[in-house]
Amino acid sequence: MGGNGLLFIISGPSGTGKSTLCKELIRCCPEVRFSVSYTTRPPRKDEIAGKDYIFVSSEAFKAMIEQGEFAEWAEVYGHCYGTPRAAIEQALKEGQDLLFDIDCQGTRQLQQCYPQGITIFVLPPSLSELQRRLQGRKTDSSEVMQSRLSKAHREISQAIGYDYIVVNAALADTVSVIQSIVTAEKHRRQYVLEHLSLVKDLLKA
Amino acid sequence: MGGNGLLFIISGPSGTGKSTLCKELIRCCPEVRFSVSYTTRPPRKDEIAGKDYIFVSSEAFKAMIEQGEFAEWAEVYGHCYGTPRAAIEQALKEGQDLLFDIDCQGTRQLQQCYPQGITIFVLPPSLSELQRRLQGRKTDSSEVMQSRLSKAHREISQAIGYDYIVVNAALADTVSVIQSIVTAEKHRRQYVLEHLSLVKDLLKA
Repeated sequence: MGGNGLLFIISGPSGTGKSTLCKELIRCCPEVRFSVSYTTRPPRKDEIAGKDYIFVSSEAFKAMIEQGEFAEWAEVYGHCYGTPRAAIEQALKEGQDLLFDIDCQGTRQLQQCYPQGITIFVLPPSLSELQRRLQGRKTDSSEVMQSRLSKAHREISQAIGYDYIVVNAALADTVSVIQSIVTAEKHRRQYVLEHLSLVKDLLKA
Repeated sequence: MGGNGLLFIISGPSGTGKSTLCKELIRCCPEVRFSVSYTTRPPRKDEIAGKDYIFVSSEAFKAMIEQGEFAEWAEVYGHCYGTPRAAIEQALKEGQDLLFDIDCQGTRQLQQCYPQGITIFVLPPSLSELQRRLQGRKTDSSEVMQSRLSKAHREISQAIGYDYIVVNAALADTVSVIQSIVTAEKHRRQYVLEHLSLVKDLLKA
């Protein structure tokens, strides 16, 4: 083996079920590791520090920005989220595949550093379903919910810049589609030529 | 729905198990139809006319060449093989996905007409396994076998021109990988934007 790992960037509007989807993907694809973001947002009830996010103070986050430690970062609804560059570099070097759950803004930043990243846009089955899901998230105030919904409308138009588009109607189906994307990407010429010594040997023969 | 079908072109050296693989794929992916080639070669014992090949005389084949009816054709070991353009055009128009089992030469010709074709190169697990498989094919004379083996050596180097490379070690695994490639390709931005009216509606909203 040898060669770089792959970067799978899952993005899409709030309320499409990205977080649940990513958790399930990590459970089903043991070869892919979740890229844990830093955030200044307080943990939600079911979130585990160090696993879902690394929760830090605004001061600590600001210091990391100033040190240029983030490959991407963004402020969303008053909270900061960011992915440290060092973690990505380390994973790539080890041939470790990473899965990112980031917003559209973060995706664009990450693509500037890592144009090889494979971008997957997750869409809700419909706008009314998206609204229902956002309303079901009791942690948000109604202003935040309204703001999320109108942001979601705007973000959906960005799907056209992504490599893949997946409609998340049923979780198990969506997980299966993204597993297929992971498998397919691991059989792309470039990846195979870098990774499989058997193929290198056959081509040299 | 609406939009063009996809063209999956399976290729690779003789003896990698492409025919068996394609048969199994067609069984497992009912949405993909096998593109039946014309050939002047006599049927092998287990081959069904109209399903595996359309068996025609050299004269009939020659007439089709002269009428420009083939999207690709080649002479291999004294027999002609070809894919009629009309069948592909019809399938594309109907949104029907097609699977091709053709050699490297045919793939290059087909790509000239249909650059959107998705090319998958099937490799044997090793050169010794390839030799063993070719020797097991009792229908070939030893000269043909030697010629196939040295052609296989040359063809393996062409893997680098394909979109995907798959090592066919165990049939069920290879089928599953190619099914994943089919699923992934059906979630590529371009395909989704052309085919899913839901996505068109969300993007218009």
